[in-house]
Amino acid sequence: MKKKIILASASPRRKELLAMTGIEFICKPSQVEEKITKSEPQEVVEELSVQKAKDIMSRELSDCIVIGSDTVVSCGGKILGKPVDVQHAEKMLAGLAGRAHQVYTGVTILIKQGNSLIEKVFHECTTVYVYPMTEIEIKNYVQTGEPMDKAGGYGIQTAFGMKYIQKIEGDYYNVVGLPVSRLYQELKLLKVLEEK
Amino acid sequence: MKKKIILASASPRRKELLAMTGIEFICKPSQVEEKITKSEPQEVVEELSVQKAKDIMSRELSDCIVIGSDTVVSCGGKILGKPVDVQHAEKMLAGLAGRAHQVYTGVTILIKQGNSLIEKVFHECTTVYVYPMTEIEIKNYVQTGEPMDKAGGYGIQTAFGMKYIQKIEGDYYNVVGLPVSRLYQELKLLKVLEEK
Repeated sequence: MKKKIILASASPRRKELLAMTGIEFICKPSQVEEKITKSEPQEVVEELSVQKAKDIMSRELSDCIVIGSDTVVSCGGKILGKPVDVQHAEKMLAGLAGRAHQVYTGVTILIKQGNSLIEKVFHECTTVYVYPMTEIEIKNYVQTGEPMDKAGGYGIQTAFGMKYIQKIEGDYYNVVGLPVSRLYQELKLLKVLEEK
Repeated sequence: MKKKIILASASPRRKELLAMTGIEFICKPSQVEEKITKSEPQEVVEELSVQKAKDIMSRELSDCIVIGSDTVVSCGGKILGKPVDVQHAEKMLAGLAGRAHQVYTGVTILIKQGNSLIEKVFHECTTVYVYPMTEIEIKNYVQTGEPMDKAGGYGIQTAFGMKYIQKIEGDYYNVVGLPVSRLYQELKLLKVLEEK
């Protein structure tokens, strides 16, 4: 029997990416208080993706699949989350302009089948090269309001990507917020997708 | 005075990408008969982008800026254009699955000012890594009809990208059809954009 798939996320971008694969799923955002015990970005995003997935799974009674994920930006050894205000967003973008940074997304797949629980955790890293930007260009972009809900303060799928991102190394959709092709391939390996 | 900018392309994807930068332009597709005298993909796309831009410029009387562009996919030393039928699309995708290929886009910027004509020609190359695909996966994707109007037979911005593209090296939008950030930066250098 086909199991219910739950995406433990409130992000409209993650929802849209997963929907484009044709996989059927529902969204249940996790409200879990995030506890970071690690310091390396790839460990942090994996840890947080596990916490989100386990939070949702703990409330499910029947067999199902839960997908949790978390994204951070890492630049010059510092982890960047979402900006807290306009000044913070401007400072963040000034730090990214004219150099390379990394975007990490951790993903946890939990599969409950009777009393057994399968757990698959992975992360993807994409390096992003940003063109130099003037102060005015940074201010203009922050004024659009787009940075505020995005780790690192920019969206690669917005005007920012069309004007200031020179190139990337890795999965583009990982920068949008979900390494959706890797997730699709892992779900295929776990044999939880409909045979086609 | 601000000059009229003309995109010499009928591609809705190129139009959409350039529009997202906020640059104002109009579209005039070139109907020029393409003449290929080169063999290397980066030379072919530059040559064809020049032909398209010059075709449109030859019909313009007043000062203006014309942007021409052309995209090809190169895999194992062979240049791939758009598939001619379903069988051709399936064969093309089977050749791309489980390996890396290159996407080249050539861009020509022509600026007419009185009797002078400035010409800037460049190309961008993005390497794309595709996951292995089964025959059924290839057939299912071709059935969506998406491959038919796309060089190489796939769209990175469609379900294909969400399921089968592992990673890229280079500009993502170059694979969609226009290296729009490089184009934006070149227009900035040529001082033809509004000062902001």
